[in-house]
Amino acid sequence: MNAKIPVAVLAAKGSVGQRFVQLLDGHPWFEVVALTGSDRSIGQTYRTACHWILSDSMPAWAAEMTLVPSEPGPVMNGARLVFSALPSDIALRVELGYARAGVTVCSNASAYRCETDVPVLLPEVNPEQASIVPIQRRLRGWSGAIVCNPNCTATGLTVALKALRDAFGLSRAFVVSLQAISGAGYPGVASMDIIDNVIPYIGSDEEGKVESEPQKMLGRVVGDAILPADFLISAHTNRVAVSDGHMVCLSVELKQKPSLEEVTHALSAYQAPEVSRDLPWAPHPPILLRSEPDRPQPRLDRWAGKGMTTVVGRLRPDPLFHYKMVILSHNTVRGAAGGSLYNGELLAAMDLVK
Amino acid sequence: MNAKIPVAVLAAKGSVGQRFVQLLDGHPWFEVVALTGSDRSIGQTYRTACHWILSDSMPAWAAEMTLVPSEPGPVMNGARLVFSALPSDIALRVELGYARAGVTVCSNASAYRCETDVPVLLPEVNPEQASIVPIQRRLRGWSGAIVCNPNCTATGLTVALKALRDAFGLSRAFVVSLQAISGAGYPGVASMDIIDNVIPYIGSDEEGKVESEPQKMLGRVVGDAILPADFLISAHTNRVAVSDGHMVCLSVELKQKPSLEEVTHALSAYQAPEVSRDLPWAPHPPILLRSEPDRPQPRLDRWAGKGMTTVVGRLRPDPLFHYKMVILSHNTVRGAAGGSLYNGELLAAMDLVK
Amino acid sequence: MNAKIPVAVLAAKGSVGQRFVQLLDGHPWFEVVALTGSDRSIGQTYRTACHWILSDSMPAWAAEMTLVPSEPGPVMNGARLVFSALPSDIALRVELGYARAGVTVCSNASAYRCETDVPVLLPEVNPEQASIVPIQRRLRGWSGAIVCNPNCTATGLTVALKALRDAFGLSRAFVVSLQAISGAGYPGVASMDIIDNVIPYIGSDEEGKVESEPQKMLGRVVGDAILPADFLISAHTNRVAVSDGHMVCLSVELKQKPSLEEVTHALSAYQAPEVSRDLPWAPHPPILLRSEPDRPQPRLDRWAGKGMTTVVGRLRPDPLFHYKMVILSHNTVRGAAGGSLYNGELLAAMDLVK
Amino acid sequence: MNAKIPVAVLAAKGSVGQRFVQLLDGHPWFEVVALTGSDRSIGQTYRTACHWILSDSMPAWAAEMTLVPSEPGPVMNGARLVFSALPSDIALRVELGYARAGVTVCSNASAYRCETDVPVLLPEVNPEQASIVPIQRRLRGWSGAIVCNPNCTATGLTVALKALRDAFGLSRAFVVSLQAISGAGYPGVASMDIIDNVIPYIGSDEEGKVESEPQKMLGRVVGDAILPADFLISAHTNRVAVSDGHMVCLSVELKQKPSLEEVTHALSAYQAPEVSRDLPWAPHPPILLRSEPDRPQPRLDRWAGKGMTTVVGRLRPDPLFHYKMVILSHNTVRGAAGGSLYNGELLAAMDLVK
Repeated sequence: MNAKIPVAVLAAKGSVGQRFVQLLDGHPWFEVVALTGSDRSIGQTYRTACHWILSDSMPAWAAEMTLVPSEPGPVMNGARLVFSALPSDIALRVELGYARAGVTVCSNASAYRCETDVPVLLPEVNPEQASIVPIQRRLRGWSGAIVCNPNCTATGLTVALKALRDAFGLSRAFVVSLQAISGAGYPGVASMDIIDNVIPYIGSDEEGKVESEPQKMLGRVVGDAILPADFLISAHTNRVAVSDGHMVCLSVELKQKPSLEEVTHALSAYQAPEVSRDLPWAPHPPILLRSEPDRPQPRLDRWAGKGMTTVVGRLRPDPLFHYKMVILSHNTVRGAAGGSLYNGELLAAMDLVK
Repeated sequence: MNAKIPVAVLAAKGSVGQRFVQLLDGHPWFEVVALTGSDRSIGQTYRTACHWILSDSMPAWAAEMTLVPSEPGPVMNGARLVFSALPSDIALRVELGYARAGVTVCSNASAYRCETDVPVLLPEVNPEQASIVPIQRRLRGWSGAIVCNPNCTATGLTVALKALRDAFGLSRAFVVSLQAISGAGYPGVASMDIIDNVIPYIGSDEEGKVESEPQKMLGRVVGDAILPADFLISAHTNRVAVSDGHMVCLSVELKQKPSLEEVTHALSAYQAPEVSRDLPWAPHPPILLRSEPDRPQPRLDRWAGKGMTTVVGRLRPDPLFHYKMVILSHNTVRGAAGGSLYNGELLAAMDLVK
Repeated sequence: MNAKIPVAVLAAKGSVGQRFVQLLDGHPWFEVVALTGSDRSIGQTYRTACHWILSDSMPAWAAEMTLVPSEPGPVMNGARLVFSALPSDIALRVELGYARAGVTVCSNASAYRCETDVPVLLPEVNPEQASIVPIQRRLRGWSGAIVCNPNCTATGLTVALKALRDAFGLSRAFVVSLQAISGAGYPGVASMDIIDNVIPYIGSDEEGKVESEPQKMLGRVVGDAILPADFLISAHTNRVAVSDGHMVCLSVELKQKPSLEEVTHALSAYQAPEVSRDLPWAPHPPILLRSEPDRPQPRLDRWAGKGMTTVVGRLRPDPLFHYKMVILSHNTVRGAAGGSLYNGELLAAMDLVK
Repeated sequence: MNAKIPVAVLAAKGSVGQRFVQLLDGHPWFEVVALTGSDRSIGQTYRTACHWILSDSMPAWAAEMTLVPSEPGPVMNGARLVFSALPSDIALRVELGYARAGVTVCSNASAYRCETDVPVLLPEVNPEQASIVPIQRRLRGWSGAIVCNPNCTATGLTVALKALRDAFGLSRAFVVSLQAISGAGYPGVASMDIIDNVIPYIGSDEEGKVESEPQKMLGRVVGDAILPADFLISAHTNRVAVSDGHMVCLSVELKQKPSLEEVTHALSAYQAPEVSRDLPWAPHPPILLRSEPDRPQPRLDRWAGKGMTTVVGRLRPDPLFHYKMVILSHNTVRGAAGGSLYNGELLAAMDLVK
């Protein structure tokens, strides 16, 4: 890793795009060579075009960059890896262009998540599914590739389910989310809709994603496709007046019922596979199990492990299934930009970025 | 009902006590003859002693009343019915005193809810359980009586479960609550704990109450005791930054699986039993079923039916159980003061107030 | 007033438009004969097109109405008075059309507020300025007319300044506002911008309006024009995380320094002029002076006098000027739709609606 | 500075106490040798006794410390400097004990702020007033000393006033604050009082402190006393739903009216005196002047300069006085624990800690 890998951020102005810029600041492996924006903002500096909503300052190098169009081309300055915060409808077309043009895409969009040869990756969970990238290239004739990170609510949930499934097998899970407003982007949720309120609805697809993406991530590569795991999830998704940090209430039925001590151990001792354990944005620890009766809480726990750690707490028996617990993860870091970045590091470490 | 029944409010200064005062203003059957307070406030006018936190003004008649001690005695001015907002530990002793002294107590406390001869009443659900009051009097040698209203989160949930159970039988239910801060009383939840946050914990007993109280309310009187119904509930309870209105996400498994149309009908056509249907604080309708994808919401729906209606929405199939839905009810009205008041009306209508 | 006056609401879908519909429900003098919407919504029912954000239900008569274009024409069903919630740039053109077509416009927009022959009216303050309407008609050759209500932050402020100026004369005022999110319309303020935050900026014009509109309203008609009063105001305007209710901190220098008792009396005894005192939406009282150290507060006081009363509190000496106080008024009721409606009533009572 | 100075934190469990512990973690000059608590918590570990409400984790060294009483004694383990977060009534007695016992107290309490021989210090503003410490020792016969940091709202305000006064002289200032809930400690403000609300009242003394403390801090040592400066301030203070960060709207009249360019320069070029400029917790820069129309904002700007920088923005002409602006500073960092710590560093650098 002598020279840094040139990377670009697609849709750098939005709330996930800003996180990409923030987290890429000073990255040891990647160097940002292009930031893209919408038609209106092309040609403006990032400082001028971007309504920066993070509490850290905009990095100086980013402020001076001129926004370019999101389509592949010479303006991308030779980026070999692109981090995409594009909306799904645009991602469908634009990410395809990059894959064809030989560039590897780490996408935060849902556009390609359901394709059987596109991995949905959490490096601390299923880095082995990255092995489908060469298959994807062969099947589709791409010289580049597309890999996705999951829906932000599915993220922390899947990390916890992985630890449980590895230890005890997994049958069924009930899931109710309390999701932060930053998950809806910017401007996103109107303040009139969320002050002194809860919205029991995220969008027409959200619950389906939370029910199906963990199955795919905990599945395995069989032949040319990823075969989903066979457990079932029921999800309710809600929006609450929290800036960052998605919380999930989980009741889980395992293949065999462990003792409380065994579950505690399975969660707190969980380790990422070796290939992803020490990457720059790897979470330390991958799961933090808290023992207080009233944790995790978004305001207090979302920044655990620089926002990459999945925080679990309130582990207790469940009268219907086996155990209840609460899971928290930072939705725009672990669940979006940080997750994509970690995926990019995994691909680089596995020599899958060309 | 020529002369009004003299009533008192115990612990009138707190957040539930204030709702009692507000809802009793102009009541057609009841006349408030005493308001009680803690040691420090006894002898002060209600105006002086009470930090009024409701957006309607304090009723003028209440403002001028002098606070008296909560124990039974001549200062109660002959109240025949008392509405108790006492904390449970104090309720245990004080409510007993009233029952012995011939006064009927409608209690908002949990102190007596688990007693097999004390009914936990929702008049639109189980008014027939009021028939245990004469048994309670005989067994305990009381000339008065104690009846309870349920935990505020169990309230709306039980109304919905009743409609479903009547129509299809009920096996199991998953429940996750998003509860308002007013449920913790005043001062209650510290603002530092809830601004930009969720607390996944209400108190050590809350989930147990939500799991067991619906069983009792949907049970039946057998001999001298109320026998709980045999379905099972798993509950997660959470505090969110909402002033009033508890929301519940419910996944339910019924004895027989109905069509979506049948469930819709069972909920929207639900009627209170005749004895409670037209009482002054009866909810109209008992259940309001909304069809929008994003309702109910606390800010928009908590005042349905003057805060007494249970609002249900987002009815949809569940991948594990049969149906998912969202339930909202106003926690300090239907779930506390309004519920107690409705219980008092039921007892008066059944001639159970001496 | 035998037959009701036919009225229309322009831009009925927005947050102020919804308040118009809500407040016109059951109005004794006015009957809504048309609701207008933007291009996209024309032809849809109000129920379908409108994302209703008020906690009372949408009135049934409104739900069934079909939205028509905002321009004058036969679709207006003979409305003689229109209540306009149009954005200012569109109001400029469309309201002019109505005035020419013989219809009287009560406008919530700022488009015409600076015209010297267009009155900015608060009926409890300056109903005499309505006398310029015939002059406006003559000067402009209109058979209709345009009257405005002031900026929502200037509203409560001007009511208080009027009472003070009548009694003691007025020299200078410092004003800092804490404004509710509903003042920005819907979707308006992004939740990411206001949760756990304050925005010290409302828009490029807001402070200028708050500094100049009270001068005009407390001025007088001289010849064919309204001559502003000669006191000076300095305004800072801020957005806070409050749903409804604009608060203003005021420090005021009067022509002669009264005692605290005299100021108290001037504010609490203030009466609207006779012509506006008993109109259907007249505030009772026009000013409510509270004596608690911590009032007014938006959540507790915004609904005083059905949202039409100006609530003043924290009256105390000022080390630089004469007195400090805090003023609250409901920004979408008294400061917008209710204010326009009250203006319409004034014009009708003065026989200025043709 | 070879060996670290042993220090203690008085009242370490509260919201300011927690900030002291957080900011002292890894301090280059100071080593915490004692944490004190209230009667109930003495003998418990800090981990057990403290309801930690900060989003960073409790430092491990602090978690294991056992809480001791706040009074001076051997349990203080030889602390030479104590940082006091005691409530003012207790501070009056306890801080005196330390001063008599030879220990230097950096107090966050208001108990001694009005004493003419006790300096209220902001090291970037008035480090020269620390020269009164030897006088204080002589006058009172103390071997220790007491120095205070100002009220949290006066803090940022005084930094800005200092820069303005140095350049142009200062006559009068209007000040309206929008203060964060953390300023009231923990549990502090009840959530029912601040969700969807503003409270136009902080406490009976707050406005007086904001009006008088800047006079003292910008005054000078004359003989044995600090003589306040002669400008006048009028303050309104308000509580808003913000977790951290006090905002102040300021209108200022200077001795001579500068151009906008000159004011801009005076604020942005302001430098701390040499003695305090490079201390470990010195703010860099002392004042950050922002040029956007809508900044500073608490959520975005409170962490400028690690929470020590005073952020100024919205500089513009004022119709009554000379200039308007908005000032933000972090109330529990610059305005409390960080301020005290910076004071301690100043005293250590001036060799005033024995």
